[in-house]
Amino acid sequence: DPQLHEYMKLDKKYRSIGFLSARTGGAPHVMAADEAVKATNTEVVSIEMARDTKGGAGHGATIIFAAEDVSDARRAVEITLEAVEKNFGNVYSSDAGHIELHYTARASMALEKGFNALVGKSFGIIVGAPAAIGLVMADTAVKTANVDVVTYASPNNGTARSNEIIISITGDSGAVKQSLLAAQEVGLSVLSSMGEIPKSGSTPTLI
Amino acid sequence: DPQLHEYMKLDKKYRSIGFLSARTGGAPHVMAADEAVKATNTEVVSIEMARDTKGGAGHGATIIFAAEDVSDARRAVEITLEAVEKNFGNVYSSDAGHIELHYTARASMALEKGFNALVGKSFGIIVGAPAAIGLVMADTAVKTANVDVVTYASPNNGTARSNEIIISITGDSGAVKQSLLAAQEVGLSVLSSMGEIPKSGSTPTLI
Amino acid sequence: DPQLHEYMKLDKKYRSIGFLSARTGGAPHVMAADEAVKATNTEVVSIEMARDTKGGAGHGATIIFAAEDVSDARRAVEITLEAVEKNFGNVYSSDAGHIELHYTARASMALEKGFNALVGKSFGIIVGAPAAIGLVMADTAVKTANVDVVTYASPNNGTARSNEIIISITGDSGAVKQSLLAAQEVGLSVLSSMGEIPKSGSTPTLI
Repeated sequence: DPQLHEYMKLDKKYRSIGFLSARTGGAPHVMAADEAVKATNTEVVSIEMARDTKGGAGHGATIIFAAEDVSDARRAVEITLEAVEKNFGNVYSSDAGHIELHYTARASMALEKGFNALVGKSFGIIVGAPAAIGLVMADTAVKTANVDVVTYASPNNGTARSNEIIISITGDSGAVKQSLLAAQEVGLSVLSSMGEIPKSGSTPTLI
Repeated sequence: DPQLHEYMKLDKKYRSIGFLSARTGGAPHVMAADEAVKATNTEVVSIEMARDTKGGAGHGATIIFAAEDVSDARRAVEITLEAVEKNFGNVYSSDAGHIELHYTARASMALEKGFNALVGKSFGIIVGAPAAIGLVMADTAVKTANVDVVTYASPNNGTARSNEIIISITGDSGAVKQSLLAAQEVGLSVLSSMGEIPKSGSTPTLI
Repeated sequence: DPQLHEYMKLDKKYRSIGFLSARTGGAPHVMAADEAVKATNTEVVSIEMARDTKGGAGHGATIIFAAEDVSDARRAVEITLEAVEKNFGNVYSSDAGHIELHYTARASMALEKGFNALVGKSFGIIVGAPAAIGLVMADTAVKTANVDVVTYASPNNGTARSNEIIISITGDSGAVKQSLLAAQEVGLSVLSSMGEIPKSGSTPTLI
């Protein structure tokens, strides 16, 4: 509909949109959408993160893909949903908070839209909640290897007022991975010290 | 008190205020307040929606009425509380999210304050959470009948970073109702497909 | 790390930082941090309040102290954590919402940073959630004694979109205390009328 097109700031050439929302997992959904735009002829027109997470400390996500062809839009949503499950493997939650680590060897347009990633470069996201855990993880990450900080978000800036510190990093593939692993180790250690052992959302892949 | 008057940006001529807060139900409360201003000699001075809903995906509401006479302010609050119960009839919730439909044949000053409604015109509000459900409902609504979109709110714009898409519409009374009914049907269908059957908050009136 | 220093807007002279996050209790943590800066050679560089509280109506808090000496930063965090426990004595919660009262005879730099307090003066904070309770308490407080309102925050302004009204007051020590006690009385009374009796978070000290 042209009225909604305008409100959603969609280019008129796109006749189909595909979209999805989730009440948890902002970063895992953006990572998954990034795989979807690589594999389909779609554009990510909007990524919005709500202060939701069903009462947790983080974000929900709403992602809109646009395509000239309806099958591309549909396929983008399917790929995202498949990839999200895998991305939750590196999300560890406990009653006290959560940490997340996300890695791609080659960022694409969803990560550019959501996190200002350089397309084609290695890219990592580090999340810790409550925010102080994210700060410890960020500090560890940048001291571990030669990586550049791309974005830094905290409760007052760059988040939907969520209780997280989120950094994204770029650099050589090996350096990004090394930083993520070190941040993961310290994050799991701090979160574990606050009570129950944090659990992975599916199967950890950063090990 | 003059100090608070100033912070609350209240006109000095109002010597009485009536106000209420709720942890759930932003739109139902604004709709109810609209009936109250029609029936009393009051002005709605402030409508603020918090990111609350006791951990749900939506908004709480705080509404302040001002009146020269204390009995008007009190009566406005009473009318609002009575009407809210009825408005929850068209709010359907499940564990996965919620949808809302609100209709008035003649908008008044609370809807003007809260949603830029044209006073005296038919007006409808459509809410879906998580946001993608609201988008499907909005799309259905504008395609169903000849209505104009008045406001469009999403997690990043026009909400308190809640996980909702909320549109308001105006037009002929029949067209607004038809759009709401179509949006309700698709919203209930999508929400039902996500698990449990959504339940009305009191007695549905849009049927 | 210099990269993070810049993102966190830290002065380069500080070589150590101490920090803490909590998912509940914005104001109790700021009050506690205020005792910490009085007792140590540290500066409060950042206070951020997230919309968290594990699904409650209020804020979490992340506070960062900077110091030239690591032992000062560590000691500031220790003092804050000790004081927080005490400050929760004047936080009363129920299923319906919560109220808080905080008093210091002499505000220091954390309260200046978080609430624009005048350093060295008597200072009080009054919180009520949902917001209408805060408004009743604020109104009672300013009518009870000769105090000045320093800050006024509501869901749309000065909070992280939380469902609270929060005022801070200054004045003579006796006047501030009297106002807090009157606000506490009315707040407890309204909150009690909404269902269960609100419970103090530790041991009440404002009695």
